[in-house]
Amino acid sequence: MQMRCAQMKRKSINEAKIIERFFGIQGVRSADLLGIGDDAAVLPETKLGKRCVMTTDTLLVNTHFFPDVSPYSLGHKSLAVNLSDLAAMGAKPEYALMSLTMPKLDDKWMAKFSGGFFDLAQNFDVKLIGGDLVRGPLSITVTAIGYVNGNEFLRRDSAKDGDDIWISGIIGGAAFALDHRKKKVNYLPKDKIREFDQILDEPMPRVILGQELLGVANSAIDISDGFIRDINRILVASKLGGEIYYEDIPRVDELSLIDNETDKKRYLLCGGDEYELAFTAPASNRSKIEELSKTSKVECTRVGIVVAGNGLKIFDKNGKKISIKSWGFDHFE
Amino acid sequence: MQMRCAQMKRKSINEAKIIERFFGIQGVRSADLLGIGDDAAVLPETKLGKRCVMTTDTLLVNTHFFPDVSPYSLGHKSLAVNLSDLAAMGAKPEYALMSLTMPKLDDKWMAKFSGGFFDLAQNFDVKLIGGDLVRGPLSITVTAIGYVNGNEFLRRDSAKDGDDIWISGIIGGAAFALDHRKKKVNYLPKDKIREFDQILDEPMPRVILGQELLGVANSAIDISDGFIRDINRILVASKLGGEIYYEDIPRVDELSLIDNETDKKRYLLCGGDEYELAFTAPASNRSKIEELSKTSKVECTRVGIVVAGNGLKIFDKNGKKISIKSWGFDHFE
Repeated sequence: MQMRCAQMKRKSINEAKIIERFFGIQGVRSADLLGIGDDAAVLPETKLGKRCVMTTDTLLVNTHFFPDVSPYSLGHKSLAVNLSDLAAMGAKPEYALMSLTMPKLDDKWMAKFSGGFFDLAQNFDVKLIGGDLVRGPLSITVTAIGYVNGNEFLRRDSAKDGDDIWISGIIGGAAFALDHRKKKVNYLPKDKIREFDQILDEPMPRVILGQELLGVANSAIDISDGFIRDINRILVASKLGGEIYYEDIPRVDELSLIDNETDKKRYLLCGGDEYELAFTAPASNRSKIEELSKTSKVECTRVGIVVAGNGLKIFDKNGKKISIKSWGFDHFE
Repeated sequence: MQMRCAQMKRKSINEAKIIERFFGIQGVRSADLLGIGDDAAVLPETKLGKRCVMTTDTLLVNTHFFPDVSPYSLGHKSLAVNLSDLAAMGAKPEYALMSLTMPKLDDKWMAKFSGGFFDLAQNFDVKLIGGDLVRGPLSITVTAIGYVNGNEFLRRDSAKDGDDIWISGIIGGAAFALDHRKKKVNYLPKDKIREFDQILDEPMPRVILGQELLGVANSAIDISDGFIRDINRILVASKLGGEIYYEDIPRVDELSLIDNETDKKRYLLCGGDEYELAFTAPASNRSKIEELSKTSKVECTRVGIVVAGNGLKIFDKNGKKISIKSWGFDHFE
């Protein structure tokens, strides 16, 4: 890892050892790639026509995760949230850099954390090529780097009037897990707690689906900020409106356990930390999407339509408009 | 900026406005570059033979800077420390991503902070293409991206036996400023306080010098962790030893004010937060280096020599060995 250490913060032998031990082995160094161990990483020459795609996201303790979250999950998620952004672009991920701020060195913690990170990284053949290690409140910033060909990528601002609105996977589980952990709900069946916790803590970014949607979808986004908020970003960027059919949103069965209708809608429409993709595609591509849904093993469901004008309307099963309130909170307000 | 916002941390309209206001204008979006505003940034196609160089570094409050540092300086320095890493590779910087964690939204603070960042960015034509904004203890992680041609970059591990050891600039000022701010020294002339503060707070990365050293130097590193520590990294990576002539190290005049010899040596040999380059080059390139020292307007001084074997020896003006102690501290110990 590339380490900048001021007089106020000096890289120690311990720190160097930690990097070597937990990250060094994975820090690839080959004839055409200079990874961890110099001032910066040097990537192989990019193939003709390829373009680099980059994103960065921070996970901070008490803001993005509970202090008692498993380090394995945290390692996984710190990479997953970034790969999800690349997936929403249809990019193939290749490299990552990680800046890790942690309160103290703890071998066991590091072994688990790096295990979670590298298990996911290897799943998509992502190489860690650099980073930084700092002492402080637990926080992980990952930068992920992928590639697309020329202009073949998925944008937010290119939905078309008449497009279907699709969503991948089945949602509601992350919000359920979060409220369960906050002790706001206690009626979640025990066998589901683990399942939903995994959705929240170890989300699987839709990397393959994203690439398969190239040339099929007109626009895409990941719904990590909640489905309605994110699909609305596509509509606003594309200068179009939309209709969502609430009953069509694919949801975890356990939502039926919730009596409070507002809570139920909030989970589905606004629940964050879902790393599914929302995308729009012409009606002529329906069968293609159903096919690639099978090959990528991620269910895709039509839940609405893009229309001329602006604004997003949500309809219940009786065709009645559901009023959209801001159920979330503004973490800077 | 690319924003991932969980249910625990939801992107607000305020936050979006802040990004638009302070970072959006600079977030270039053109036919061949998709910057801030989608899930990830898409870079232009890389020219044939070019290779991407990347580094990431975090600045954390109370660890890398005092809480009362000027936001302008902090914006400058958060980019500078990363550009310094690119400079040490001989790379030409082009892009940056920034993940900013801050305790509260403050328009005035943000205006100054982004001012410092963009003033330096524009100086080297660096474009901000993405990032993240989080509420929490003040911390800035920047990822900087540059380019080199093929294998034309400066590494740590390729010093040669007999190389001269060079250092750019004049050092000692950052350590002086730091001790002055910690109230450990009080004899710094007033007109110098501002000058040394600037070295500490707004260092100028040796971006041009780094590129001019391509094909001239055999190895290079930035000395942000202190000269001895960093030059030793070159020697260890190159499996060689070295000799440094203490009296030849270019130093700020005010070091003569220090009575305590150990303090003086500590400033020069171990003082961190100096963003100069240390590099090694064959004796046959001496005149070339003196020339490029003039064109890049950064003084370069020969301070030692690379020798066979291992270990670094430091000699005083009488040829007596100076014993190297660990004057720094390990921030994980």
